[in-house]
Amino acid sequence: MNYFDNSATTQLAPEVKETLCAYMDKTYGNPSSPYREGRLARKELLRARAQVAQSIGAIPGDVDNKGELFFAGSGTEADNIAIMGPLAALDGSKRHLITSVIEHPAVLNTFRHLEKQGYEVDYLPVDRMGNVTLDSLKGALRADTALVSIMYANNEVGTIQPIREMAELAHEVGALFHTDAVQALGKIPVDVKELDVDLLSISAHKIYGPKGIGAIYVKEGLDIKPYIHGGHQEYGVRPGTENMLGIVGFATACKLLLEDFEVRNAKKQRLAELLMKGLSESVSHIYFNGNDESKIPGHVNVTFKYVEGESLLMSLNLKGIACSSGSACTTGSDKPSHVLTAMGLPPIEAQSSIRFTVGRYNTEEEVKYLVQEIPLIVERLRKLSPIARRNGA
Amino acid sequence: MNYFDNSATTQLAPEVKETLCAYMDKTYGNPSSPYREGRLARKELLRARAQVAQSIGAIPGDVDNKGELFFAGSGTEADNIAIMGPLAALDGSKRHLITSVIEHPAVLNTFRHLEKQGYEVDYLPVDRMGNVTLDSLKGALRADTALVSIMYANNEVGTIQPIREMAELAHEVGALFHTDAVQALGKIPVDVKELDVDLLSISAHKIYGPKGIGAIYVKEGLDIKPYIHGGHQEYGVRPGTENMLGIVGFATACKLLLEDFEVRNAKKQRLAELLMKGLSESVSHIYFNGNDESKIPGHVNVTFKYVEGESLLMSLNLKGIACSSGSACTTGSDKPSHVLTAMGLPPIEAQSSIRFTVGRYNTEEEVKYLVQEIPLIVERLRKLSPIARRNGA
Repeated sequence: MNYFDNSATTQLAPEVKETLCAYMDKTYGNPSSPYREGRLARKELLRARAQVAQSIGAIPGDVDNKGELFFAGSGTEADNIAIMGPLAALDGSKRHLITSVIEHPAVLNTFRHLEKQGYEVDYLPVDRMGNVTLDSLKGALRADTALVSIMYANNEVGTIQPIREMAELAHEVGALFHTDAVQALGKIPVDVKELDVDLLSISAHKIYGPKGIGAIYVKEGLDIKPYIHGGHQEYGVRPGTENMLGIVGFATACKLLLEDFEVRNAKKQRLAELLMKGLSESVSHIYFNGNDESKIPGHVNVTFKYVEGESLLMSLNLKGIACSSGSACTTGSDKPSHVLTAMGLPPIEAQSSIRFTVGRYNTEEEVKYLVQEIPLIVERLRKLSPIARRNGA
Repeated sequence: MNYFDNSATTQLAPEVKETLCAYMDKTYGNPSSPYREGRLARKELLRARAQVAQSIGAIPGDVDNKGELFFAGSGTEADNIAIMGPLAALDGSKRHLITSVIEHPAVLNTFRHLEKQGYEVDYLPVDRMGNVTLDSLKGALRADTALVSIMYANNEVGTIQPIREMAELAHEVGALFHTDAVQALGKIPVDVKELDVDLLSISAHKIYGPKGIGAIYVKEGLDIKPYIHGGHQEYGVRPGTENMLGIVGFATACKLLLEDFEVRNAKKQRLAELLMKGLSESVSHIYFNGNDESKIPGHVNVTFKYVEGESLLMSLNLKGIACSSGSACTTGSDKPSHVLTAMGLPPIEAQSSIRFTVGRYNTEEEVKYLVQEIPLIVERLRKLSPIARRNGA
């Protein structure tokens, strides 16, 4: 399997696997228990929290004081808590919210839910490269804007938004700023102080950690009400007995991130460019989506005109190439990508688009295999298509 | 460590550890992905769902149809979704809810949140043995009761409630019935059809599975709105990329439950009785809490009069005995147990109470050690207490 779907999920790092198997031998304690087994688990929890906090520049909590980093059940849940939690803590007088049309369903559907609760939501458009412009944000901000949520890097086209500038604009009118950094973590530096955001969400399984564990950054001093109700875990921010395997795995994945961060990402980008060059030279009627000037490394979203995306995907899969037609979280939907159509692609071309995302374990040989196989598959599919023939493809 | 806190959490079964380490080698796929790695994960997810569903008699979902069993991030989250989800799907005209005063914080705090949302909540009392009476439920039910939530077995005293009869009463007025079966699973039969409940929550880490994974039973045909907003995962009931390690571990734990269910629980009960007999014979001024006629096997909650519970707990811990003064989810609170005080214990005696919960891996030797050590510790502590001496203890 040539795995080029690292934005959907990543392979578990061998180091993470090792840590998890060792942890299972070390302790089964409940971090809330007062005796030795509990203390052991509590120590591991604190260590893991510090490690994950460090990877984004947040203040970790200790035994007595809550810090800025809280674990949650997934990136999706982290998004939900980061948006719902602070709104529940406000007095409810500010009823206006801002997000963008290209957010992940975890954010988009949370805002749709908030609309039903009586909030007014502005969904900012994007330009042809997938950027929310600062001007459109400036134009939408109001005195009664409670919160703005704009993703750091898009999961389908990889476009990076100017989060620092956006957060500054939001703060000028007294609004909170949240960013979904699930796709950014591990690919570009994520520093909460540098970005000056109030809330940020991340997830372990996009950085070679386990699935089912996310985390939320909540700026020191910011009040946030729990969205899940229960005990005192995670300093009351997210009750429920801690997913210790997920947490310990997340921390190990974060530790690995910091090793060779730049070298690894330069390699991902080199392979992505090799792929783009190879495809450009051997396949006609294609174009690449996203913002070349501001894109996460390794991200290639390409439109193969006159080819039905799902057929192409299936043919690629049969040749052992794993990639996708959009977000894994919208798989099964037969609608064209909401991100690509928002960028102005005609629906038919949005449906002819494929995402290849290079990861830590991909090799040049794999890319060469893709560059060799893809043109043959595209050619074969176009031969079967009257529209392709009519357009000389 | 003599681990007698199996209601707080359980040791990971070696079989579960083995399965998890093997799974990490098998696939890293996202169950939503269409290619081989995704298909592998999807197959494991379906298999796990079927296994967990089987353990409670629920209908598992398949690729095309949602069944009755959905995974969540913990038992706490399962409780939250099971209560909030169906209420969000109702038209909101029924504004009355019923629960009991001895529920877990995951349920109690969810109802407190619902009170703030304008619901009227009746918190039913319990008798001296920790039972909610059918009469009190009958008296509280109204035509506008939307939902009733009563736990199957209590986490502090082990008392089992007559859930089947309670669900029947709730259904007579058209109310939904939810039960938190987190402490019941693995100790007494949990059969959703037999109990005829509409909603039920369970958790893996109480049955020798991993922490951070729970599940919700939702009766076929019952409408439930997602509480977490996002993608299509878990048939839309609980979005977020699936915690595959947790899910696979949960399933293995459920499979193990069904093996030697009765033999194992008879052993737990035999050891619990040995412990109670030993303490009764060697320690004066003690009494046991809970309902002897209707209690989960292995559960011993004992009040040592004239001894401060926290000091006793610490002394026990120093002797390598792990047990607790109440729920792990309320650790750190200096209030007397809300369960014991609701049962009528004076606060001072509630604070002199310790919970020992026997698990699958406990031995007779360990119980003998407890019976040998505990009287010495209690005697030493009472010697230091003027109140104990005044009362001849």
